[in-house]
Amino acid sequence: MFENKERSDIDNLGEFGLIDHLTKNIQLTQPTTTKGVGDDAAVLDFSDKKTLISTDLLLEGIHFDLAYTPLKHLGFKAIQVNLSDIYAMNGTASQVTVSLGLSSKFPIEAVEELYEGMLLACKQYNVDIVGGDTSASKQGLVISVTSIGYAAEKDITYRHTAQEGDLICVSGDLGAAYVGLQLLEREKQIFLENPQIQPDLEGKDYIIERQLKPEARQDIIFLLKELAIKPTSMIDVSDGLSSELIHICTKSNKGCNLYEEKIPLDPMTYDTARSFNLDPAVCALSGGEDYELLFTIKQGDYDKIKANPDITVIGHITEPEAGMNLISRSGNVHALKAQGWNAFK
Amino acid sequence: MFENKERSDIDNLGEFGLIDHLTKNIQLTQPTTTKGVGDDAAVLDFSDKKTLISTDLLLEGIHFDLAYTPLKHLGFKAIQVNLSDIYAMNGTASQVTVSLGLSSKFPIEAVEELYEGMLLACKQYNVDIVGGDTSASKQGLVISVTSIGYAAEKDITYRHTAQEGDLICVSGDLGAAYVGLQLLEREKQIFLENPQIQPDLEGKDYIIERQLKPEARQDIIFLLKELAIKPTSMIDVSDGLSSELIHICTKSNKGCNLYEEKIPLDPMTYDTARSFNLDPAVCALSGGEDYELLFTIKQGDYDKIKANPDITVIGHITEPEAGMNLISRSGNVHALKAQGWNAFK
Repeated sequence: MFENKERSDIDNLGEFGLIDHLTKNIQLTQPTTTKGVGDDAAVLDFSDKKTLISTDLLLEGIHFDLAYTPLKHLGFKAIQVNLSDIYAMNGTASQVTVSLGLSSKFPIEAVEELYEGMLLACKQYNVDIVGGDTSASKQGLVISVTSIGYAAEKDITYRHTAQEGDLICVSGDLGAAYVGLQLLEREKQIFLENPQIQPDLEGKDYIIERQLKPEARQDIIFLLKELAIKPTSMIDVSDGLSSELIHICTKSNKGCNLYEEKIPLDPMTYDTARSFNLDPAVCALSGGEDYELLFTIKQGDYDKIKANPDITVIGHITEPEAGMNLISRSGNVHALKAQGWNAFK
Repeated sequence: MFENKERSDIDNLGEFGLIDHLTKNIQLTQPTTTKGVGDDAAVLDFSDKKTLISTDLLLEGIHFDLAYTPLKHLGFKAIQVNLSDIYAMNGTASQVTVSLGLSSKFPIEAVEELYEGMLLACKQYNVDIVGGDTSASKQGLVISVTSIGYAAEKDITYRHTAQEGDLICVSGDLGAAYVGLQLLEREKQIFLENPQIQPDLEGKDYIIERQLKPEARQDIIFLLKELAIKPTSMIDVSDGLSSELIHICTKSNKGCNLYEEKIPLDPMTYDTARSFNLDPAVCALSGGEDYELLFTIKQGDYDKIKANPDITVIGHITEPEAGMNLISRSGNVHALKAQGWNAFK
């Protein structure tokens, strides 16, 4: 992957050298950051706000494939998937810590690319990198990100607080990241069988980007504030719509009716799924990695969002006895199943 | 390692099943924990205190060797090394997040042991597990822990605030963890060459425990409060005394005189180092993993600590022009060198 590029060995720099090298471009911009990288711990000041913490582990060969993942995108994505969790609490993401496990064969230029993507994501989302750990790895690239944010107590949205009659809403569209992955995997197979054939991804930018470079929906948090809507519950869509909605219903002890025909699908997602003989709705329900926000709102808030192209109402919350139902296009009622992505399968 | 034990496959449980299984025994005890495991992010309440965050990555084959590391100890240690960073800020550790990358071949009983050690460490140190991530790993065991704590602004001790004339102090004794590691490595080699020979670790409990089951020095933080001492700077000894003292001096823009004869060594450390033809002082200076606290205090505080067996004065801070010096037993002056542990070598 790096054969045409300049290579510098990490072991020449050593652990501290590498940390200094990577962190010298970090500029702290957040008023809540009192002290960033360079001490035993970062010091943050959220005054009267609650502190929000979330963490994700990304492992080579499980969560990403370096054969088709540009490192800059990977860095960007590693930050985004973490910030998404803070937004899903209706919070402001303000800091991250970044731990990297790196093969000593990994050239510094590659680590720089990865870190560049992380810094770009942080800049774009107003987040400081305030700490981390860097180590050699015998087991491929390891990325662990912890995101930190804050929110006033009254603004925090949990998963367990959906109420009967609430409308189920989702931002953006679903299934694209999964279909994009199928496309990348297919092209990888073709390339492995015949390295002369160039990957054919033309015109597929949107779904490829949804997989490689997802953007956490901070804008939806801003929008909801603007519209004066506090969701009654919220979660981000990392494992697929079905799995996330089941989380909300289970934790809230409620049922739901989800309407297949309402699930927002991009036309490219739809067509590409079809070309793979995949049911586009299943890609949305079980695909995952969309990093959209799934949330419930009071019926009284419907007028505030009904004209908004970024938010789609896809169902409603019911009493628990009614169960969690998917209503198909033909009107059949199916029990909603969590076929979310399982790294252990 | 697990051949005589019951084995249950992780992939039968799946990711959510495993998380539920592991986290069902978590009891939240900290008043600062508003919401723990089970939502997109944990919610913490530090009211008017500063939030402290630190993170460490532990990788199989780099930071630990499962050939001689009991998983319960490993879990305990993974938490301790992180809490140590919060104590090094003179803070109260209150929460951790724990991410695990696990081979699907790893039986659930093994994960349970690991988690049991983590829960034990948390219980003993009054810390809540409030989140994490669990994933399959294609190679070895990956452990990423983020520790969270708090402190009043006036209590926080940084690395960059040592002053000329301050006394350099260290808690406990040094070098034992490194010597313990040499012992474990030797016995592993003997075992690999002849599996009939049982490991000979008799009477070496102290140094073995210092390696396998270190205890972060929360007690020193309590003691310093009791003695009404606020260190002028502080760091924990993870990479070796030499490396840590250089951090303090460099960040404070100061020099130091460190007296070799003052470095606290346990007699077992001393004797065992000698039996390996190692210089015991070098084990303390460059060995690392002691998780003691290295700190500076004003000379005026000397009387408060001079009779305390848990704290040793090992030198003093000088003007930067004097350099960072190690004064040997024979009175020779050497420049202090950071030969701290480097995972990339």
